[in-house]
Amino acid sequence: MINGTRKINRTIRWGMVGGGSTSQIGYIHRSAALRDNSFQLVAGAFDIDAQRGKNFGTQLLVAEDRCYPDYKTMFLEEAKRSDGIEAVSVVTPNGTHFEICKAALEAGLHVVCEKPLCFTTSEANILVELSKKYNKIVGVAYGYSGHQLIHQARDMIARGELGEIRMVHMQFSHGFHSEAVELQNESTRWRVDPKIVGPSYVLGDLATHPLFLAETMLPGLRIKKLLCSRQSFVKSRAPLEDNAYVLMEYDNGAMGHMWCSAVNAGCMHGQIIRIIGSKASLEWWDERPNQMKYEIQGQPAQILERGMGYLSPRALEDDRIGGGHPEGLFESWSNLYWRFAVAMDATDRKDDKFLSTFWYPDLHAGVEGVKWIENCVSSADKGAIWVDYK
Amino acid sequence: MINGTRKINRTIRWGMVGGGSTSQIGYIHRSAALRDNSFQLVAGAFDIDAQRGKNFGTQLLVAEDRCYPDYKTMFLEEAKRSDGIEAVSVVTPNGTHFEICKAALEAGLHVVCEKPLCFTTSEANILVELSKKYNKIVGVAYGYSGHQLIHQARDMIARGELGEIRMVHMQFSHGFHSEAVELQNESTRWRVDPKIVGPSYVLGDLATHPLFLAETMLPGLRIKKLLCSRQSFVKSRAPLEDNAYVLMEYDNGAMGHMWCSAVNAGCMHGQIIRIIGSKASLEWWDERPNQMKYEIQGQPAQILERGMGYLSPRALEDDRIGGGHPEGLFESWSNLYWRFAVAMDATDRKDDKFLSTFWYPDLHAGVEGVKWIENCVSSADKGAIWVDYK
Amino acid sequence: MINGTRKINRTIRWGMVGGGSTSQIGYIHRSAALRDNSFQLVAGAFDIDAQRGKNFGTQLLVAEDRCYPDYKTMFLEEAKRSDGIEAVSVVTPNGTHFEICKAALEAGLHVVCEKPLCFTTSEANILVELSKKYNKIVGVAYGYSGHQLIHQARDMIARGELGEIRMVHMQFSHGFHSEAVELQNESTRWRVDPKIVGPSYVLGDLATHPLFLAETMLPGLRIKKLLCSRQSFVKSRAPLEDNAYVLMEYDNGAMGHMWCSAVNAGCMHGQIIRIIGSKASLEWWDERPNQMKYEIQGQPAQILERGMGYLSPRALEDDRIGGGHPEGLFESWSNLYWRFAVAMDATDRKDDKFLSTFWYPDLHAGVEGVKWIENCVSSADKGAIWVDYK
Amino acid sequence: MINGTRKINRTIRWGMVGGGSTSQIGYIHRSAALRDNSFQLVAGAFDIDAQRGKNFGTQLLVAEDRCYPDYKTMFLEEAKRSDGIEAVSVVTPNGTHFEICKAALEAGLHVVCEKPLCFTTSEANILVELSKKYNKIVGVAYGYSGHQLIHQARDMIARGELGEIRMVHMQFSHGFHSEAVELQNESTRWRVDPKIVGPSYVLGDLATHPLFLAETMLPGLRIKKLLCSRQSFVKSRAPLEDNAYVLMEYDNGAMGHMWCSAVNAGCMHGQIIRIIGSKASLEWWDERPNQMKYEIQGQPAQILERGMGYLSPRALEDDRIGGGHPEGLFESWSNLYWRFAVAMDATDRKDDKFLSTFWYPDLHAGVEGVKWIENCVSSADKGAIWVDYK
Repeated sequence: MINGTRKINRTIRWGMVGGGSTSQIGYIHRSAALRDNSFQLVAGAFDIDAQRGKNFGTQLLVAEDRCYPDYKTMFLEEAKRSDGIEAVSVVTPNGTHFEICKAALEAGLHVVCEKPLCFTTSEANILVELSKKYNKIVGVAYGYSGHQLIHQARDMIARGELGEIRMVHMQFSHGFHSEAVELQNESTRWRVDPKIVGPSYVLGDLATHPLFLAETMLPGLRIKKLLCSRQSFVKSRAPLEDNAYVLMEYDNGAMGHMWCSAVNAGCMHGQIIRIIGSKASLEWWDERPNQMKYEIQGQPAQILERGMGYLSPRALEDDRIGGGHPEGLFESWSNLYWRFAVAMDATDRKDDKFLSTFWYPDLHAGVEGVKWIENCVSSADKGAIWVDYK
Repeated sequence: MINGTRKINRTIRWGMVGGGSTSQIGYIHRSAALRDNSFQLVAGAFDIDAQRGKNFGTQLLVAEDRCYPDYKTMFLEEAKRSDGIEAVSVVTPNGTHFEICKAALEAGLHVVCEKPLCFTTSEANILVELSKKYNKIVGVAYGYSGHQLIHQARDMIARGELGEIRMVHMQFSHGFHSEAVELQNESTRWRVDPKIVGPSYVLGDLATHPLFLAETMLPGLRIKKLLCSRQSFVKSRAPLEDNAYVLMEYDNGAMGHMWCSAVNAGCMHGQIIRIIGSKASLEWWDERPNQMKYEIQGQPAQILERGMGYLSPRALEDDRIGGGHPEGLFESWSNLYWRFAVAMDATDRKDDKFLSTFWYPDLHAGVEGVKWIENCVSSADKGAIWVDYK
Repeated sequence: MINGTRKINRTIRWGMVGGGSTSQIGYIHRSAALRDNSFQLVAGAFDIDAQRGKNFGTQLLVAEDRCYPDYKTMFLEEAKRSDGIEAVSVVTPNGTHFEICKAALEAGLHVVCEKPLCFTTSEANILVELSKKYNKIVGVAYGYSGHQLIHQARDMIARGELGEIRMVHMQFSHGFHSEAVELQNESTRWRVDPKIVGPSYVLGDLATHPLFLAETMLPGLRIKKLLCSRQSFVKSRAPLEDNAYVLMEYDNGAMGHMWCSAVNAGCMHGQIIRIIGSKASLEWWDERPNQMKYEIQGQPAQILERGMGYLSPRALEDDRIGGGHPEGLFESWSNLYWRFAVAMDATDRKDDKFLSTFWYPDLHAGVEGVKWIENCVSSADKGAIWVDYK
Repeated sequence: MINGTRKINRTIRWGMVGGGSTSQIGYIHRSAALRDNSFQLVAGAFDIDAQRGKNFGTQLLVAEDRCYPDYKTMFLEEAKRSDGIEAVSVVTPNGTHFEICKAALEAGLHVVCEKPLCFTTSEANILVELSKKYNKIVGVAYGYSGHQLIHQARDMIARGELGEIRMVHMQFSHGFHSEAVELQNESTRWRVDPKIVGPSYVLGDLATHPLFLAETMLPGLRIKKLLCSRQSFVKSRAPLEDNAYVLMEYDNGAMGHMWCSAVNAGCMHGQIIRIIGSKASLEWWDERPNQMKYEIQGQPAQILERGMGYLSPRALEDDRIGGGHPEGLFESWSNLYWRFAVAMDATDRKDDKFLSTFWYPDLHAGVEGVKWIENCVSSADKGAIWVDYK
């Protein structure tokens, strides 16, 4: 049970790139990082408009001279200070992630980055190399993976409670972009601009989330081949897809299935993951994160509830309040950020032994996402055919 | 509102092939047919074991001499009587449907048949020919299609309330055969025996149901190509699948998606259909047939309820009790059987005008199912590739 | 598993009083009685308008000369026939139940009657005496009590799975009469006319249903005292209530609670029963009759499903189709009517031993309902005070 | 939309009494207060064990010399500092609330206090006097009232969308204390000790929460009389109740109903509020705080979702992330704490005009809760009779 005390014996000096005044995602990064003193926000390049960024930063109580016009200046100036930032979160449009992450690592900073980290596996490999070279982590903002029941699922699957795994069904399909809202709405516009978001829209923006939930629940699973069919139901979005289906074959004979969509009219969020085994299934829906269905074939379906004593210790560890009270997305993010802090601290101390068993959405997870998108796009562009996963 | 009075001015003399004492599906045929005096059960070849069939038939108050050892004898003997059967329902394992339907038509009988009607489109075409030749109908037991809200959906879609149709998602995935229950359970065994069920298991047994719901809701939709990936998670079932995914492209650019499974562990029934348009979606689940979700993008989701005045007349027409009271599967079947009676009567009267606009699961629907399975199996057997629909 | 064969070796000749062409409740009586040949409809006084009743009866295939202008004529004329009715169902406005039931018993007929049987316990006692004198049953149309999971609950409670029973929460609260619909709607008008329905509206019309479910689940429970507060939110309904709360103390220290309402705006049906024990609770909702929640304190909630092998034999006995397929209200009624037939047959055979353990909604159940209403009205009329139950 | 910037131009120096290392409720107070820089935690008397309190406080980064052994010392010492605390939150067992609140007001501090504020209305009146005298607020921790949809309900009701209000149904009934868990569990023990919690258990601990939700939604409602029946199903808890029912008559003719329980076996939280009007009903459940059911009689039920543009501005104002993402209890508390900060600031500035229309759970709300409990206990102790509300 988390009670607000720190998980490490220090507070990490932290800055942000992006996440300005109108950024919802910026706020959730700050809410999570600043909770419980794991991090202290001391600097930022919050906005592409320097003055607006400074106004906003000072409202957040960041010193005016540490509200920078751009990330390059920030990395340069902060490096000169004895109390300069140790870590930075990158909350900018996708097309800039790679260069900022790269620069941050080269500036000796730990990084938390929005997904996707970059657009190609070769870029991803560069980040892997830099992370090793500078001994700094890159945490990835797979913000749903901090929910406790995801880890309950991981434990139950590891204990064999589902039997042999047969199917992994993933879905993230909302309806908010059923119309061409990007024509009016700036915050949506960049998401459908290939120059900014790279080769995909919903595959990258949505699908990588449940993909990572599946990876978290089933760490041993390997994709052998996949097939992706993608559509641009709002025509002006082509070549970027606003809807896609992906079929996957795993190396153990299990099947994977993904449906991601921004045009599932009327659906609020629609991130669902269902793991089907030979004996039982688990199903979790991110709009009801405090519950998970556990269905043993031939027995009454069970509803597991966050915070209850029958869950595994790992699932209970992150509770902030008793079962029955709803925790939400902010708690999930907070559960990630304290892990980022612990991982940064252990990395600084070169505690490889600890890190070898410590879970957090790490650079590897980010690389896997990039690779998966690459394979999906490759399949789709060849006519939705099966491609060997590489 | 149905109150028990007949829809036609006669009671059709009716017999059954199959549907013996242990057959659940036989009981639902009888419950539906005999409700409200549309049909009268006067003969039967209920069981492959003649004596058992006679015992059962007489318990159903069928005259002993009209409990026949087999369908051939029944058709022959009944034809000799002035009060012989006018219609027959075929409730036997799949492999026998074609020959019995064919014989029934040739005996001048109207037919209600379990799906699939047969295994090949060439067989299906023979039935079409015979049906025309003898002026007799073949109704198909798509038992879920009588639920009132399916027709509400059809009307709402026709009125454009969903906007342009983009996706048709169909699912029928239960978990009852997660293990090789057929080793112990005779009533399951034939379902996974290719000699009896033909080229598919769940594609034919399950998927054709929501496929027909989609056809009912969206009569204008035409499949252009499809891809089917099928699995035998219980290995001994190969080459028959116990799980399959089908992607479809319709000629208007919409996408279709089917998941059918008998190994979705813990799931009770799992027949769900979701139609997604540019403005709104409809979703119906056969385990809650009295409700349908109507989700207009940007507005609160609505739950439509059977029996309420805001539904369309066609949806209200089949109510047997006011909204709030649950109707179930038996009512859906009853709604089909009175339509079969009406269609038989109109056919006998050669009232083509009436029949041209009268909906019921007809021979055409049965043929479409056979064709769809054929295309799916063709795709799957070629390695889950796209095939042009034919 | 019910397959359509009769539970007794005869078909009972049956008539109806009321239940004419616009009566929903008449249809459900017929649907239930005529299913599976327990009863045969051979006579009726269907309508207060004799000609309309005859028109309707002949449409139901009742012989024209057995469509009677009123119940008295029917009882008289049928008694003269060797093939006269043996049983009658009374489906008329409440104020006529007593006199018709009385006359039916005196005519030597078994009776099925809508609740309430009558308006006073002294009237009820007269029916009890007549039932004994003529050796005929009075079955009461507590139509929800045939749902299988009600009996699952009864068995689980009897086995102690809930621990000591602490609370019995009953609710039947729909919103269909939120406005004074009776001003326009004839079928509602009589329900709020004290001359026709006696001393109560929703207490009698709605509350007695879940009350009987509770009695069925908990046959040993005895009310010690109760308090009833009732309201007429639609003023013109006074003195009849359209909403009421009842608190009950049982002799074992448990508390009972009832909320019944016809003005619960927007609620479809709202019949819910929750039994709370020291270890676990059960909750059943009549709009989802195939499911029951079973919540053991400290464990994941379970959803029990009709038709599953883990249920008790008594719950499975009435299944007509496998789990996952929705049965509805018509099946519940059918489960009562075959019991009425069996009880009539056993009573005719004077098989008291069999009857002593055979459950059905019997005269005693009807009397208990009348008594309960009487106590509620007594409490309410004294200012919603506690009254000793008598 | 909240983005982390402060609602006032300062950060209030804040201390805590209670809320030590094992206190869940202490953590939620801190999480809410410290979010977004409304408050800064600078002092505390966190624990009855001074050393343990100091250890904990320093882990929370409170200066060691400002971790006090008790609240008296804290108020005394902090008053000497120019940077002393301006506000304090009282998170201690109920029996100490009054004396600490009193002392805090007398020390010139703004207060946030757990409910109940005190045990008698005469005590409550003293707090009211002191609040006026020292010009300091007392905010009450009605932690569920910050959920946005509560305010959506308030607005819809004010606009007349439900019609005339007929019923207010409140419930808070979990099952966590179905057994005498207090025998083992210290954090439960004090809750059932009359010396510590005063004259009630669940009435005070649970029922006052939905009572305040109702007051928030329906600010004009006045109770005229009430009746309370309370039970101690775990006998050792007597005279304190672990279950209670309260019936209320409001001065406009509406009825109120409350069920509160700690022995509702298997129920997780069970805080539900349903407002029933002549045209429509609203229902909100604290375990799904992002949704509210809106049921207009005769129309499809609607599910309102937090964060959607169709909600009223007041409901949208507190969003921290878009609709579809689940917010939880921590956000509701945060929404209260920024209001407490704003109210403190406005009070310091004597901005009565602003305060006259600014909603927060204020001293008046706390007083109302105390009064309600007093009336309930009075009714219950007289034998569950109606008492005039005073």
